[in-house]
This record gives sequence, structure tokens and C-alpha cells, in this order.
Amino acid sequence: MPALEFFFDIVSPYSYLASTRVHALAASAGVDVRWRPFFLGGVMKATGNQPPASLPARAPYMLRDLQRWAARGGVPFRFPSRFPVSTLSAQRALVGLEGAALEGAARGLFQAYWAEDRAIDDPAVIADVIGVDAAAEATTAEAKAALRTATDEAVARGAFGAPSFFVGDELFFGNDRLEWAVEAAAQVRA
Amino acid sequence: MPALEFFFDIVSPYSYLASTRVHALAASAGVDVRWRPFFLGGVMKATGNQPPASLPARAPYMLRDLQRWAARGGVPFRFPSRFPVSTLSAQRALVGLEGAALEGAARGLFQAYWAEDRAIDDPAVIADVIGVDAAAEATTAEAKAALRTATDEAVARGAFGAPSFFVGDELFFGNDRLEWAVEAAAQVRA
Repeated sequence: MPALEFFFDIVSPYSYLASTRVHALAASAGVDVRWRPFFLGGVMKATGNQPPASLPARAPYMLRDLQRWAARGGVPFRFPSRFPVSTLSAQRALVGLEGAALEGAARGLFQAYWAEDRAIDDPAVIADVIGVDAAAEATTAEAKAALRTATDEAVARGAFGAPSFFVGDELFFGNDRLEWAVEAAAQVRA
Repeated sequence: MPALEFFFDIVSPYSYLASTRVHALAASAGVDVRWRPFFLGGVMKATGNQPPASLPARAPYMLRDLQRWAARGGVPFRFPSRFPVSTLSAQRALVGLEGAALEGAARGLFQAYWAEDRAIDDPAVIADVIGVDAAAEATTAEAKAALRTATDEAVARGAFGAPSFFVGDELFFGNDRLEWAVEAAAQVRA
């Protein structure tokens, strides 16, 4: 099956929205999704990018835009009382997982932060959401190195924010471009 | 008819893309479009925003994204050899026009810059595209004041970039949100 890589960070609200749509869109196009945890803070630092909400004039609009998206898609959404928070532990825990375990853990953490306002920077909360064993992996040197490697890889391939979708060398940025990314992945097979 | 306000600047590539779609989308929804020239440089200065292409890591992606849009929509597109250029004269000329004259002049200038790589910061080119009389208006104190007023108005209403669509108090930012803006305008009538 052709593959779509989905680089995401739990702290990114548009990654959350994309996470609620990617499975159905890819499945209907016969495309396989590879969930790729990376560290958005590292991407921002490497590229000099700034989160859109850091512009005071843009922050209220972004909230409105997210609420509109969520309402249209029937997606549970509640802007967290603390934003942004560090996702280093969460992303390190995720980067050690694969396949269905990774997808399930990522969905759990997205929901905890973006629908339930839980403290996903708290190791106890992470353990509660994804399990004690998976959460414990976050503290290993391997997880630390793996997250850095994934982040560096995304930046080297052209990523500057999240979500970033790759189809081979082709980058598609943002929840708004998920459809195009799925189409491009489907065409690789053709 | 319910109205959609379309704030644009000729220098903005996503405003150009929106300009090629707004008429058909609005007409099919029974929505009237008010073309609103403003000065994007003034919006950026007032809000502290930066053009997306000013981030080195983002510039090549933006070009690719624009090319994809143009190819999908069958829109003539050729990235200008000089970008950005000052649109003060062009926007001042446009702000004095109304209705079909404004729309026609704006379309002419968009095409001159984004399809034909013409120097739309040159008064002679502006005059060639929109006519000598309309172009001459750009040098008046009235045009200068009117463009500043329109720009200040957009910022006061929450705009931070281009294109910006307004339906009453509701802002929709970017070519990607044109459909939502048209829908919202159509619902005002309902």
C-alpha cells in the first residue's frame, strides 16, 4: 500500500484535528498511514518558526477557526486551560511505539489534551492514558535520541510546523492539506 | 443580498487565488461580494505579523503549495521575478473604484503580477492595466487617506493578513476559508 507519513505533536491543535480525520480519509483511498511523532518545539527552534497563536492579533482568530472546525466535524474540542505545555515526555513515550499501539496512544493523548483538558505534561497523566510501561519508555536515552532523530529528519525534509504530511519527498503542511496528501499518496500506487 | 467582504492586496498570492474563485462561489450561493482593497504592508506593521515566505524554511513550500493550487484550479500562475513589490500605488488606485470597475481593475492587476510577471509597482504599468484616469487617482490625498482608512478598519476588525473575508463581525482568513465565508454569508440571509 502507498504510504502517507503523518508527523504530529500532541501540543498542535491542527494535528489533533487531522488525527480525527486521517484514518477515514486514508482508508477510503487505500492509503496506509505512518504516524510519526516529532517534537514541534524542536522544529520551531531549528527553523525559526513561531507558533501562529504567538501573534496577539492571530490568537483569537485561531481559537475561532479551531472551534469552527470542531463544530463542523463533530469533533470534541475544548481549548486547554494551559497552552502550550511541554510535550517532550509525551512525544518521547510515543516515539517508541509502533502500529496500532502508537495510533491508540496518540489518540488517547490528543483527546486527553484537546477534549478533556488534562495535564499531558504530567508523567502520571501520560501513564494513565497510555499505560505505565509505555510511559516509562519516555525516560530512556533511546527515546530521547529517537525523538531528536525523528525531529531532525522532518526538518531536513522541509518541515517547519505541524501537522506535516509527507508522500515520499513531497510535503503537505497543515490539516487543510490532508486531502491533497492522501490523494498524492494514492497516486503513487497508480 | 447577503454580503461577503473580500479584503485583498495585489501582492498577496493567496488573495490572487481567492480572486479567481470568489465570484463563482458567491454567485452560486446567492451572496454579494464587496471587494475591499487594503494595504497588506500596513496590516503587517500594525499587527507585527510577518509574510509566511519570510521564513526561509517555509518559502519553498509556499511556492509549491501555490503551484499545486494553480494546477488544480487551472489558474494561470507564474511566480513574479520580483517579490514582494510595493503595492501602495496599485492599492491606492483601486480604493477609489467601486463595483464592476473595481473588480475589473483588481483582476487586471492580479493577472499582470501573478500570471504575466509585470511590474505592478510601476505607475506606467498600472495605467496600462487599469486606465490612465483610474491610475492617476492613486496620487491624490483622498486615495492615500482612503487606503489607510480601509487598512485601519480591517485591523480594527481583527485582520492580520490577506486575504481576509468578513461576514459582519466574523473573520475568515485565507483562500482556504473562502468556502466557509461564503456559507456564513449565505446563512445571514436564511
